[in-house]
Amino acid sequence: MSLKLIEKRRSFGGEQCKYTHYSELLQCEMTFSIYLPSNKEKKPIPLIWWLSGLTCTDDNFSQKSGFQRLAEEYQVAVMIPDTSPRGEHVADDEAYDLGQGAGFYLNATQEPWAKHYKMYSYIAEELSAIAKSLIPHFSGKESMMGHSMGGHGALVVGMKNKERFRAISAFAPILSPSKIPWGLKAFSTYLGDDKEAWKAWDASELIKEAGMPPILITQGTEDEFYPKHLDETYFLKNAQENNAVVQYEKAEGYDHSYFFIATFLEEHFAFHKNHLR
Amino acid sequence: MSLKLIEKRRSFGGEQCKYTHYSELLQCEMTFSIYLPSNKEKKPIPLIWWLSGLTCTDDNFSQKSGFQRLAEEYQVAVMIPDTSPRGEHVADDEAYDLGQGAGFYLNATQEPWAKHYKMYSYIAEELSAIAKSLIPHFSGKESMMGHSMGGHGALVVGMKNKERFRAISAFAPILSPSKIPWGLKAFSTYLGDDKEAWKAWDASELIKEAGMPPILITQGTEDEFYPKHLDETYFLKNAQENNAVVQYEKAEGYDHSYFFIATFLEEHFAFHKNHLR
Repeated sequence: MSLKLIEKRRSFGGEQCKYTHYSELLQCEMTFSIYLPSNKEKKPIPLIWWLSGLTCTDDNFSQKSGFQRLAEEYQVAVMIPDTSPRGEHVADDEAYDLGQGAGFYLNATQEPWAKHYKMYSYIAEELSAIAKSLIPHFSGKESMMGHSMGGHGALVVGMKNKERFRAISAFAPILSPSKIPWGLKAFSTYLGDDKEAWKAWDASELIKEAGMPPILITQGTEDEFYPKHLDETYFLKNAQENNAVVQYEKAEGYDHSYFFIATFLEEHFAFHKNHLR
Repeated sequence: MSLKLIEKRRSFGGEQCKYTHYSELLQCEMTFSIYLPSNKEKKPIPLIWWLSGLTCTDDNFSQKSGFQRLAEEYQVAVMIPDTSPRGEHVADDEAYDLGQGAGFYLNATQEPWAKHYKMYSYIAEELSAIAKSLIPHFSGKESMMGHSMGGHGALVVGMKNKERFRAISAFAPILSPSKIPWGLKAFSTYLGDDKEAWKAWDASELIKEAGMPPILITQGTEDEFYPKHLDETYFLKNAQENNAVVQYEKAEGYDHSYFFIATFLEEHFAFHKNHLR
């Protein structure tokens, strides 16, 4: 086991930690961050996953959102994976929306991506096992949260494991990747041209199945990527037709940045808290 | 007037703005950030200044501290200057603790620094006039806050203008620049070898004068620069001997980072709020 603690900083009474490890699944060195609340009373601690957006690493959320105040207040651990496999030997692309930093939380089937780009299984399996080993008094209860590409990731990973994740929330998520430019580019590259194969990674398709976890979505009205990449129409239509529990909120005047995320994070944490009890 | 708004992002109901302008005093283009709370009730709004540490720009505090939540809650504007003059024609040094990013909030007298390095007057005069023009319903009440080199800056600017600034607080500040490595290097470079001239820029000397504003200081016990650069002994001795109102707190287990600042910011904002009423 190559797990190595490389940073530990006290934050709001808990510990903001950063680890590296060699991922057998992704066949590269990976970095992630995890916040462990103080848990002075040694009570069972649930886990919220945060999946970040295009170009991000595990640092953006841990440094820019202020989530630690809420994680300590609610006594919940927070796991923050990187957004793709990394390394000189890992396939990449010059564009910001493909390759390293843009893993899209799926398992690629096309070359040269298939060898390393398996962020779905990395998160749902390999990193999950590590997370559980790092959280003392883990309650076993988990939920998913994310932003933009990571909002898509939270919805897809959460819905594909609907018995496991008790709630999903997303800030300005990609909701219909099979229909919008970011998603069309990534899916055709990572998954090939057979659009049937895309459905397993598209929140607007997954929501058609019964029994999905409750979902909260917040979207800024001044988001520079809305509605081009973040259109909600098809997702909400399918959610309604299939009686999914989806709360979709517009935030007047907010953009796509972490200033937007920080503002509405307390509401999202309260939503998760309710479902992680 | 060259003042130009280059970013405006909604944050916690208020607006996080970034401006550039040509500083006549510093003879270079400068950038600063300012947060304006929503002020829905059109009440008088006080102003807190935040002075950042070595290597920082106006971005560090606005992106990493989460202060906007508190500024909106308390309805206070926050002004965040850069830490030095900038530009290819501005004197610089390869070291992180000298030159651009390391202005030390003083007016340099030595070449090649004297032409541009006048951060004290820039903040106390030129930027102050701009700040007042940007805050609707400004109450006229101001206070100073800062971190590390910026903690030194907050203390020096605040105490040199003791009638104007109603409170000063600092996170892990340089308290005796004439006695510690960072300060010795900066002061001898910017101010020359006459140590008498250093006293006007040393918080441990300024505190000897009567009538200083109330001061709150928080210092992490695991700070990688403590006590080497941040020793408090001489400052606290002089404060006590001269009956200054200084509250000095140790924060167990915290380092020098923004994780530390974010954790104790609420306490500091409450302190300022009390004195800005």
